[in-house]
Formats: sequence, C-alpha cells, structure tokens
Amino acid sequence: MTTERSFASDNVAGVHPAIMAAFADANRDHALAYGHDQWTETAIDRLRQVFGATAEPQLVFGGTAANVLALRPFVDSFHSVLCARTSHLWMDECGAPERFFGCKLVPIASPDGKLTPELVRPELGVMGAVHHAQPRAISVAQATEWGTLYQPDELRALADLAHEHDMILHVDGARLANAAAALDLPLGAFGAEAGVDVLSFGATKNGAMFAEAVIYFDADVARRAGYLRKQGMQLASKMRFLAAQVDAMLAGELWRELAAHANAMATRLGDGLAPLAGVELVRPVQTNAVFARLPPAAIPTLQAHTFFHVWKPDQSICRLMTAWDTRTEDVDSFVAAATEALSTP
Amino acid sequence: MTTERSFASDNVAGVHPAIMAAFADANRDHALAYGHDQWTETAIDRLRQVFGATAEPQLVFGGTAANVLALRPFVDSFHSVLCARTSHLWMDECGAPERFFGCKLVPIASPDGKLTPELVRPELGVMGAVHHAQPRAISVAQATEWGTLYQPDELRALADLAHEHDMILHVDGARLANAAAALDLPLGAFGAEAGVDVLSFGATKNGAMFAEAVIYFDADVARRAGYLRKQGMQLASKMRFLAAQVDAMLAGELWRELAAHANAMATRLGDGLAPLAGVELVRPVQTNAVFARLPPAAIPTLQAHTFFHVWKPDQSICRLMTAWDTRTEDVDSFVAAATEALSTP
Amino acid sequence: MTTERSFASDNVAGVHPAIMAAFADANRDHALAYGHDQWTETAIDRLRQVFGATAEPQLVFGGTAANVLALRPFVDSFHSVLCARTSHLWMDECGAPERFFGCKLVPIASPDGKLTPELVRPELGVMGAVHHAQPRAISVAQATEWGTLYQPDELRALADLAHEHDMILHVDGARLANAAAALDLPLGAFGAEAGVDVLSFGATKNGAMFAEAVIYFDADVARRAGYLRKQGMQLASKMRFLAAQVDAMLAGELWRELAAHANAMATRLGDGLAPLAGVELVRPVQTNAVFARLPPAAIPTLQAHTFFHVWKPDQSICRLMTAWDTRTEDVDSFVAAATEALSTP
Amino acid sequence: MTTERSFASDNVAGVHPAIMAAFADANRDHALAYGHDQWTETAIDRLRQVFGATAEPQLVFGGTAANVLALRPFVDSFHSVLCARTSHLWMDECGAPERFFGCKLVPIASPDGKLTPELVRPELGVMGAVHHAQPRAISVAQATEWGTLYQPDELRALADLAHEHDMILHVDGARLANAAAALDLPLGAFGAEAGVDVLSFGATKNGAMFAEAVIYFDADVARRAGYLRKQGMQLASKMRFLAAQVDAMLAGELWRELAAHANAMATRLGDGLAPLAGVELVRPVQTNAVFARLPPAAIPTLQAHTFFHVWKPDQSICRLMTAWDTRTEDVDSFVAAATEALSTP
Repeated sequence: MTTERSFASDNVAGVHPAIMAAFADANRDHALAYGHDQWTETAIDRLRQVFGATAEPQLVFGGTAANVLALRPFVDSFHSVLCARTSHLWMDECGAPERFFGCKLVPIASPDGKLTPELVRPELGVMGAVHHAQPRAISVAQATEWGTLYQPDELRALADLAHEHDMILHVDGARLANAAAALDLPLGAFGAEAGVDVLSFGATKNGAMFAEAVIYFDADVARRAGYLRKQGMQLASKMRFLAAQVDAMLAGELWRELAAHANAMATRLGDGLAPLAGVELVRPVQTNAVFARLPPAAIPTLQAHTFFHVWKPDQSICRLMTAWDTRTEDVDSFVAAATEALSTP
Repeated sequence: MTTERSFASDNVAGVHPAIMAAFADANRDHALAYGHDQWTETAIDRLRQVFGATAEPQLVFGGTAANVLALRPFVDSFHSVLCARTSHLWMDECGAPERFFGCKLVPIASPDGKLTPELVRPELGVMGAVHHAQPRAISVAQATEWGTLYQPDELRALADLAHEHDMILHVDGARLANAAAALDLPLGAFGAEAGVDVLSFGATKNGAMFAEAVIYFDADVARRAGYLRKQGMQLASKMRFLAAQVDAMLAGELWRELAAHANAMATRLGDGLAPLAGVELVRPVQTNAVFARLPPAAIPTLQAHTFFHVWKPDQSICRLMTAWDTRTEDVDSFVAAATEALSTP
Repeated sequence: MTTERSFASDNVAGVHPAIMAAFADANRDHALAYGHDQWTETAIDRLRQVFGATAEPQLVFGGTAANVLALRPFVDSFHSVLCARTSHLWMDECGAPERFFGCKLVPIASPDGKLTPELVRPELGVMGAVHHAQPRAISVAQATEWGTLYQPDELRALADLAHEHDMILHVDGARLANAAAALDLPLGAFGAEAGVDVLSFGATKNGAMFAEAVIYFDADVARRAGYLRKQGMQLASKMRFLAAQVDAMLAGELWRELAAHANAMATRLGDGLAPLAGVELVRPVQTNAVFARLPPAAIPTLQAHTFFHVWKPDQSICRLMTAWDTRTEDVDSFVAAATEALSTP
Repeated sequence: MTTERSFASDNVAGVHPAIMAAFADANRDHALAYGHDQWTETAIDRLRQVFGATAEPQLVFGGTAANVLALRPFVDSFHSVLCARTSHLWMDECGAPERFFGCKLVPIASPDGKLTPELVRPELGVMGAVHHAQPRAISVAQATEWGTLYQPDELRALADLAHEHDMILHVDGARLANAAAALDLPLGAFGAEAGVDVLSFGATKNGAMFAEAVIYFDADVARRAGYLRKQGMQLASKMRFLAAQVDAMLAGELWRELAAHANAMATRLGDGLAPLAGVELVRPVQTNAVFARLPPAAIPTLQAHTFFHVWKPDQSICRLMTAWDTRTEDVDSFVAAATEALSTP
C-alpha cells in the first residue's frame, strides 16, 4: 500500500518515536492496573510541575472524554454549559455532553470562535428562575476550532465573570500545545494561573497515540471525578501505557517542539497560498490550521493532491491542518500544485 | 525500580511483542482518522472470518465500554438488563450501565456466576405491566467472574429463552479467549452460532495494550451503535493503532496461544496449592483464575511474595489470576512459598 | 384576602365550573387506578373523534411533561431535536428535554417564533456523520410563544421536510385551543391531518386544573410511551379525575368557547392599548397574548394595576396574557389606567 | 354504570369531601402560578408545624415523583441507593429512579420488607473503590409494601448508620398517615426527629385527588430541589389546587381520621378472614393491608365479589387493601362471601 499525506486533520499523523520508545520502556514485567504504577506517578508529578501544585490530573483515552469528564463533576442536570456555537463541544461530540451531563448546552454565536464576557453575559439573565436551566460553566477552546487564540488575560476575564456568578471556566485544550507554542507561553499559563477551573490537555493530536489529561484544580472535585472517569468508561486498565505517553510528551517539552513545528508548517502553507489568485485566508494563521477560501473548481484537484476538508461548503472555505510530522516538502509540493491549478485559466 | 510479579489480575501483564510490532508497522505516514484506514478494514475482515459474515464489529478502548456499548443499542430507558449478581456488569462498572442505558439492571443470585433459564425465568413475570421495567436483555460473561464456563448449548438455551420474550442475549467476553482455549472451541462458537445477539471480545487482558471489540450481528443495530460509540467517548481518532492490535491478536490465533498459556499456568498453580494444608479450591480451575480459600494468617505472607486479591474477605477466599506472561517459575516459586508458609506450625 | 386580577399568564386563571362539576360527577365510589376506568375510556374516545381514529392519547399532569413525553418515544440519545430559540421547549423546561431524552436540543433563531423549512434545512447537513447528533424531530408550538400561528399547510410543509429525512414533527399545543379558535378550525386540523406525528394538547391554561393530553398517531409508539409515561412520573393513579377534565373540555367544544373568549379579550386589550402614546404592538394580536412595547417609566404603575411580565427587559417589551376568565371590565379598567398613565406628561 | 367496590388498592378510592370543598374554596379569581399563592404558603406553614421548623416542603403530583425527587438532590450518577427488594422504589417505578438519578439501585432481600443495619452493612464494603457505585442513600418505606412498620428508633438506627458513612436516609411515606395512625404517633416522629434526611408524605391514597409532599430538612438541598422539581415535570402551574389538598388533609389531622378508618377496616377484614378454613394471614395486619394466603380455587370467586390482587401467584398470597372510604358493610359482605365460599366442599 502506498503511503498517503494529508491535511485532513492533525489526527491523521502517526506516533512520534519518543512515544514508541516510552511504550517499550513501560513494557516491563507486571504493574498494578488502573494507575497504581510508577509511570502514572511520574506523569502526575510532571503535570503538577507544569500546571501547579494544586493540579489534580486524570488521564483518559480521548478528547471527547477529556472535555466531558472535565466538566461533569461541576454540573448537575439542572445546569447549563455555555459554549461557542462553533465549538467541538457543541458540534462534534454527538451529544456526549448532553448525555453524560444530562443537562443543556447553550451555543453562543461568535464570529471568530472565541467567547468574551460581552457574548456570555446576556445568557446569565435566567439565573435564579426555576423554569430555566442554570448557567454553571463557560467552556472555551484554546486554540479554538477556528485556530484563534486567547491571551491569558482574556481567559482571566471570562474566569472572573464565571466566578462572580458561581460558575466555572473550562478550557478545551485538545490543541493547548499549539496555542502555548504560538503564544510562546508555558502550558501553565492557561490553567489555575489564569483563573481556569479545569482544563483538558491533549497529546493525541500532537504525536501521541491515545493520551489526554484532565487537569482539575480542586481535590474534592478530583475525588468525585475519579468515580466519574470509571463510569465514563475512561479508566484504562493498563494505565502505565497511557501515562508513559504523557511522560514522554512533557519530558524536555517535546510537546512544544512538535507543536511549534506543526504551527510553522501551517504558516508556511498559508504564506504559500495567500498570494494565489482566488485564494483568501479567512483567518490569520496562528496555530496549525489554515482556513482558506479556495476557488470551488480547484478544490477537487487540490484534494486529490493532498486531502483536506471543505469546512463551509456554502462559502468554499477549506480547512488545511498541519501536524507534528508534516514535512516541508509536503507543504511546498501542495503550494506548487495550487499555484499551477490556480494559474490555469 | 525492581520488577514485580503479580497474581492480582490478568491486566497487570504487559503487552505481547507481536502487539508492539504491530504498532511499529501501523506507524507509517498518514492515515485518515476514526477508522477510515486499512488496518481497521483488516481487523473487521478478520473478525468476520471468526464470527461469521453477519458480524458487525466496532473497536473500543476498554472493557467497561465494550459491555456498555454492546447492550446500549438494544435497550431503552424503560427496559431492564438481567445479569448475575457477581457479574462485572453489576459489580464493577461504577454504575456505567445504569448511567449510559438510563435503565435498571436486575442482579440475579447465582452460585457459580452462571445464569440459567431457570434462574432467569422468575424475572420475566413483570412483562407487559407499565409499572415495571421491562426485561430486554440477558447478559452473561464467558468465562464468568468465577472462572466458570458456558458450553455453547447453554448459551443457546439462554438465547432461546430471550428470543421467546423479545429479548436479546449478550456475552461479556472480556476473557472469551480464555474460555475458547479452555473449551477447545473457535471464538465463533460463542456468537451468532450460539444464538448470541451481541458480544464483547476482549484483547487487553490477553496481551494487548488497549483493545476490545464489540461484535453486533445486525446491520441496523450496528449503524445506530456507530453513533453511540462516538457519544460513548470510545471512537478512537488514531483508530489504526487499535485495529492493529486486534489484527495481531487474530493472526495465527495468537489469542489462543496466549490464553492457553495463562490457563495452563492457573492449572499448575491450582494443582500446586490444592494439596496444601488449609487450602481449598472453591471452584475447579477452568480458565486463568484460581479461587482458593487460604488460611487467614498466611495471606499477608503470601501476598508479600506475589500479590493477589482477597475476593471474599469474610470467607478468606482469594483470587489468583495468571496471565499470558506468567512464567512457570512464578508459579513454582509461589507454590514453594505457600508450601513453606502452610507447613510452619 | 383580596382577590387579584392578573395578565401574568393564562395559568393564573381558576378552574371552569364545568370542570368542577366533572370532578363531582367522577367522584363516585371506587374505580380502578391508572386509567382502567370509564372516564378515561370516554376521554380517549372523544380525543379519537377529534384527532382521528389513529389517535393514541395519553393523559399527563402538566405541559412540560406533555412535550417531553410526546417526543421521548421517537428520540434516542444520539439524536437532536430542532426547535425555535424562543420556544418553551428550549427556554422554559429547565433542561427537562435534555435530561429525559439524554440528547441535544438545537435552538434555531426565528424572528416570529415560527420555524419554516428554510430555517430548518441548514441544520440537516450533519445527517449521517457519527460526530454529530442526528436531527430526529422538529418541534413547533401552535400557537407559538410569540402568539403567532401556523396554517395547516405550513405544518404540512414542515412535516414533509421531516419525513423526507426520517424525522418527525411535534406540535406543542399547550395553547392549541387558542390557535384553533383563532383560525376557526377544528383541533384535528393540527394533527395527523397536517402530517403531524405527535402533539400535546393542553387544557390546563384553558380552564382545567391539571390536564394535558399527548396524542400519538402510531400504536407501537404509544405502546412504548405507556412505559415512558410511568417512568416520567406522569401516570396518575386516580386517573379518572384527569380524564374527567378532558371529557368536560371536549364536550360541546367547551375548549373553543373558552379560548375564543380569551382571544377576544386580548384583541380588546390590544385595540385599547395600540393607539396610546408610546405604545407599540410588536406582534399582531392573534391569540390570547398582547406583546407591547411600553414606555419604561409607565411599566411599574401599570403592573401595580394589573400584573404582567416584562418579556424583553432590554427592549421594554411586555407580555399581557388574557385567560378564559378575563372579564371585559378587567381589560377596560386596565386600558383606562394606561390611558391615564400615558397621557400624563 | 354501576358503582364498584374494590380491595385492589387504596388508590381506587375517591376524593374526600373536604378536599372537594378545598378546591371550591381555592377556585377564587386569579393567583400567581407555580406556588406564588396563599394556599401554598399555608400548606408550607402547616407542614413546618408538623415536621419541624427546618422542614422545606415541595409539593408534587404523584408518589413516584415524590420518591424520585426526594432522593435526587442527594445522589450523583456514581452513587447507589440501597432499598428493599420488595420496595416500590425497586419494583414499581418502571426504572424512574435509575433514569432520573442516572445511578444504580441496589435491592436488598428482606423477609418482611424492612431494612435493618444488619441487612445494609454488607453493601457498604465497596466504599472508596472507584470500580463500584458508592452507596449514598438508604431508602425505606413507612409503612412498607408488606404493611410492616418502623418504630422511630428503628429509623434512628438506620439514620445513624447512614450518617456514619456520609449517606442519607429517605423515607417513602406514600402511606405515612397509615403508619402514624397505627403507631399513634405524630407524622413528625418519622422526619428529622428520627434522623431522617428527606421523606415523601403522600395524601393521594388517603383521600386526596393528586397531592404528595417531599419534605427536605436542608435549605440548600431544597434550593437545588426546586430546579429538579421543574425538570422532573412536577411543578404544577395551578399550584394552589395542589396546596389546598394538603391544607385540607392537615387541618384538624384529617389524615389521621381517614387513615385510622382504613386501618380499622383492614383489621376487621383480617379478623373476619383469619378463622376461615384454608386462610392464612401471612403478615399481622398493622395498617390498611391484609396479606392472606387463600385457597387457589376460591380466589376467582372472591375477586368477582370484590376485586383484589394476587400478590405472589406462586404462593396464592393475596393483598386486600382498604381505604378511607371502605365501609363496614363492604368488609362484612366480603367476609360473608368468603365464609360461604370456603365452607363449600
């Protein structure tokens, strides 16, 4: 079978050699299941170094689970969770949040995928009336699904608004590494330091095989979350192999190196496409995604060269994602193909 | 750190080299996410060869998920699921079935962990009355949590009872490999061939890292199950690595070799312990578990040698589990320690 | 205690004498519980005369329950229900639909509270992809929460769209009587005749004490709904008293008389307020609700005269509702007070 | 239609005249909906007089709802609720508790329908382990479904056990009036006074039309319960009519008069049946239920005279229930019929 390059998503990428080495290292003899092992201990220590001493990390298999389990200990069925209408939480979890929370999600329209206190505030008028689901959490993604970014003080402003109303702030960090690399900040800048109450930190898209961490910042919440992780079918029996991936990703800030590379590839791709006739970058390239309006007639040709998804079919907006293993020649060859396709009358 | 041997469970074992090799092989270039890749295609083909052409397999991360997602497409919230009181489904899922089904589980007392039509029938009297949750599924484990086994005709009898009442039969096959090896039967003997409507087939405990398959036998059920897997937070993005494990496990019946070894180690362990003073094997050793009543005073000493769990503290019944990587010397050294401990007055 | 008149809602009204008489009549001797009685039989017969021979009615206590139980048998947890953002279903059920369905509600912005095929169609693009909750039902209110109305052919167009996509159409008829009276049509015009798959028919707001009916049009759906009604805590033990209210409401079309009166009172109220300085009727008065923008300074004075709710505080839009027992003098006295308040500089 | 007498249940009875009078009295003019009315205020005051100043009552439509909403604010989805296997909560709610809690119910075998610390304690061994649903509540019925009774100190012992384990005690008081009348104690003896954390107090079976109260004893729990009542589809819009029933029932201890009468009728019935050939009272008659083993051949004849349910078909155990409106002649006529039927060879 021939190999295949793709801009479909960052999860088309493979697994980084350091992760494979970590598996081999962890595959020694017997270890107690469910996290009672040295690799999990190490992973938790490392995550505390990154996110602060109050961090209470729990490892899970996937990104949907990380988001759902991050929020679940905070919400009761009469609550609501406020999120952007473009968010993965609203759009792409097949109802997992509603199902597992048993509560309402409220989608908020946002031009760039980010929430602000101004956008959130109108939803708080229902507070205190029994007829209405009670807002309990604000959930934002860093980076967002549009590749946009929050500065720490923007998160702080949302956290302050949340806390004034007995609410909490959740950060979906499936691409936190890309955000931190883009902003040149430590991962911890997006946790308790910014007033965030819980965040998901993804490794899968950034070179791991299956590894996400939920970082709680409250011991009692984390205690309850332990039961909910099991109930949520996310308590890995051979946990050491999950932990080993996180260990490898944090050691020497491997995550930053990989994310920075993916980001750089997207910048190169955006720079290559932007000048072409009929191409419009609808968002500035900030992380590892390029959102470009492409001439409709050219899309199939370009997809045949390197597959990508049409994001907004009615507007011919395409999403091209780079990954930790995207090569310079992948980008350059695609740009060359686009140059040719778009210059042909 | 020193290595550690354990009889705590079969999930203390590591990952078989063939699985590691499969990871390496699958770690080539890019592959579309969520199962649109060649490894998943191969895994599905292999599972259909094993379980028959009507098999509709879906891969998930863990065993709790496999059980929950196997049953979920069949049950509505007003249904009930009948299971043994000693079953993993009732005891060890932290309420995941009730949560994800939204329905009642009915535990049935069973001396050896097996259900029979005679044990099930009294629970069917509530059929048709709106005040009572309506029995919709019988769930059994093969092998059971007591290490006991169903012959195919015993499953058939349960399936017939179920089908007479518009119910379905589920088999929890977290240790299906051990059962099939013990009975010297193909895996397929416990699926549609025996009237079973859905089963979970576990690889994790038998040498994989994280890999379970749910085998549906109805295309419409499987179609709906696809959404429920995503909602159940079990749709792996880098699916190829999940599939690769299943491929490796099925190729050349690796599963049988590993399970047969684990079973043989348990037999050797049981044979070594049975003659000792104060030891009683409370179940015949049929798979990879030894259930033994041990003299209470000796338990801590023996646990210090090789850890195992006390299963029924009030009766001093201990569970010692072997795994694919249990070594003859692990067993012999433990038997020697037990011989010494139990002969000391 | 002094009596109090109110335009707060139609549920501030009391119970019509015919309902009280029906209670007295039903309060004879013993009757089997849970609907095995003659009054329930009569109610079902009458509802079938109104809604057609395929109607399968079930009586419940309240309006939230009627909506939730109407939709519940059709939806699985991976589905979604499409509704107007201003709908009671989205806004005013404190998350009961999400909780009891376990699935997502998708709110659609609509200027007048009505849905159209054009508004609904963009939400159907997610069909068939496992990442997205699958649209399964369109839910509309007749009359809507803005007092607007659907012609039968408008419902038919939505039903056709729904059925083309294996979806169903639900009508929330908490105020179906007001709608039917306003359009001078039989109640049955908004059921199966218009392609509607299930509807709620409310009596409580229109002179009953506590009585709503869910009308299914499919025997198998209704069979399952029977269990869900019990599970939904809506199976009245002394059902005869629920049924007796429905009987009284349908006998001689009492519902129409009462609703027409409420509608007429709203028209009178709107006509009285419209010419006043600073008053704007933001919707034509079609049923028993007047939506009027009032001068902010005058609102407290007018609320003190006869209480009503400010519907959109940021726009000074108020909702004044009339009921079956609103008197001409209630309206005229309020209009007089408004005339005085608004002419005072 | 001819009237019909029945021992089928106490919910076959009609509505007491005092309730009908209360309806008429409450049916004055307008009152704000959802409990913002004087009758609700009065009902709450009266319930506080009965159950103590910390009582936080909420009124609901039915008994299933009362039980579910009583427990719901205390339990999360990873909890479990311990109850008798014969309890209404386990048997007769069609899975409403599992559905609305999202958690596991654990049925405990009990010879007489009562729980004791000895029966409960073995279920607490799972505390603290994430694999197991965590016991959070003990739920008992007063009177039980077998007509047996708890002395206040028996409730206290269960409450103490519960509180030692961070659990709560719930009392299902669908027939609390019958229990209090039988024990000649005030209703309040079974609430906070006995260490009970929440109880349901039923009026429907004892002469009301539809009226149950949940009594919480914690203001924060009650605050959250307010939202859950709405979400649980139990917030009556015309609440005054629900409250008026509770008012009437508490005024002058009407509940005691009615319950004592029902109890006396059961005693008379039991006394009449006990001496007959082939009749065995399988429980002492303590409240308004007679559990009698009857000769199988006589059952249809006796059911034709006055209908009752066969409770345990395999043992010919029948349940005959009396109500507030059972007449002496109903009992005597039935006993006469039984005497004749059972003396005929």
